[in-house]
Amino acid sequence: MTAEMLEAFNREQFPQIDHMELKVEHVDDKTIRVRMSVKDMHLRPGGTVSGPTMMQLADAAMYLLLLAQIGPVALAVTTSLNINFLRKPAPGGLYAEGRLLKHGKTLAIGEFSLYSDGLEDPVAHVTTTYAIPPQR
Amino acid sequence: MTAEMLEAFNREQFPQIDHMELKVEHVDDKTIRVRMSVKDMHLRPGGTVSGPTMMQLADAAMYLLLLAQIGPVALAVTTSLNINFLRKPAPGGLYAEGRLLKHGKTLAIGEFSLYSDGLEDPVAHVTTTYAIPPQR
Amino acid sequence: MTAEMLEAFNREQFPQIDHMELKVEHVDDKTIRVRMSVKDMHLRPGGTVSGPTMMQLADAAMYLLLLAQIGPVALAVTTSLNINFLRKPAPGGLYAEGRLLKHGKTLAIGEFSLYSDGLEDPVAHVTTTYAIPPQR
Amino acid sequence: MTAEMLEAFNREQFPQIDHMELKVEHVDDKTIRVRMSVKDMHLRPGGTVSGPTMMQLADAAMYLLLLAQIGPVALAVTTSLNINFLRKPAPGGLYAEGRLLKHGKTLAIGEFSLYSDGLEDPVAHVTTTYAIPPQR
Repeated sequence: MTAEMLEAFNREQFPQIDHMELKVEHVDDKTIRVRMSVKDMHLRPGGTVSGPTMMQLADAAMYLLLLAQIGPVALAVTTSLNINFLRKPAPGGLYAEGRLLKHGKTLAIGEFSLYSDGLEDPVAHVTTTYAIPPQR
Repeated sequence: MTAEMLEAFNREQFPQIDHMELKVEHVDDKTIRVRMSVKDMHLRPGGTVSGPTMMQLADAAMYLLLLAQIGPVALAVTTSLNINFLRKPAPGGLYAEGRLLKHGKTLAIGEFSLYSDGLEDPVAHVTTTYAIPPQR
Repeated sequence: MTAEMLEAFNREQFPQIDHMELKVEHVDDKTIRVRMSVKDMHLRPGGTVSGPTMMQLADAAMYLLLLAQIGPVALAVTTSLNINFLRKPAPGGLYAEGRLLKHGKTLAIGEFSLYSDGLEDPVAHVTTTYAIPPQR
Repeated sequence: MTAEMLEAFNREQFPQIDHMELKVEHVDDKTIRVRMSVKDMHLRPGGTVSGPTMMQLADAAMYLLLLAQIGPVALAVTTSLNINFLRKPAPGGLYAEGRLLKHGKTLAIGEFSLYSDGLEDPVAHVTTTYAIPPQR
């Protein structure tokens, strides 16, 4: 699936996160970069992006990376997510860059670094596991 | 801080999560139970509560548990969160029950099980770490 | 499988960890308590039990808990382990107490607290996931 | 500290893991590569390296990476470690490559991929946090 197909499929499946305006800036058979649009509803006191927003971005990026490999039929679900918050994100743009560590028959594991526009070092790091349903 | 004080402080500090209508059903010097009101915006296809909503609930419950110990002055921040999704939550009520595993000078670690009304087994399990700022 | 059967099977399968002298003090269909014998080789400067020793104990306890449910035929393998070190263990006895959070067809997830003899609070907390091979 | 100084300090402080014969193949102000010598005692049935051995390697690599930054005086301790096992390591050489995600005043967070000689993809992935004692 191309970046455009991924975005379209995501909008259709997850209208609840339309507010993130996810944009797939790059995707191939191992890596992905997904950008979100940060709005007031994603912020916390002090103007930083909230933790759950960052988790959501990483989770969505992993879902899209997996989707790009197995196509839109399968209903993969998150089984675990581990996040380390590294430094305060700036209130501007936020994007996730990540790669598939493993893509097995029943499990896929990915690793993501989250970056805030204007900061060189990552603001958060995520590893996450998805369960892949049996293919028909 | 009592349950009412915690809820009031939380509403004041985090108006962005007003939609969860968090209710502290129990709190003492080691444990807490926090209930949220599940609405359409928290759901995913199939009617289950979204992962980020569950992470948010656990994160808020840890924050409130810590606040109950150190009072409203300190600005504790999440440094890491690890979540395992165990089974599909029902679309109804959701609550987190947890305990402080450690409350040190600079770090606090908590463990939470998330339950869905009507299901006996937990729907998710979370461990999370907060950094505690130096007390003045 | 009974506690004795589990210990025997474990000794046969994992002679490399004979040095731990694992003892299953309790096991049922959801929980287990496994004790190890702490020796010089498990210690670190200052006389505390090493981190990898604690990880090994939790990993073995999960394996035994799972074995008690599915029997000795299946070859379950660890897919992830998350440990929080909470406080210094005493050099004496160490045991793990834990429970199955989930026992699905392909994944089992467990949660363990590690205790040091003479300390009331846990010295470490572990969540871990095992992949269960398809049953023939 | 140079690679040689790190190895010497490590041998002096942690004689219990002499059996790993850790070798610092590269170290700079953000990254490190540490190789271990795999022996029978590190193996499991089927000839693969045991999970706790891999955790030990990653933990030691993080310790050495941190030591290279702050020098041999400080007594940093692991506060958490999260490992994902990705595929079976070969019985041959094993090494960890990693980087500092954060090096703050009280916490340092690192990320490591473990590789088995002869396999292109990583066999395990680790994120770990160390608490740094106050500097005098």
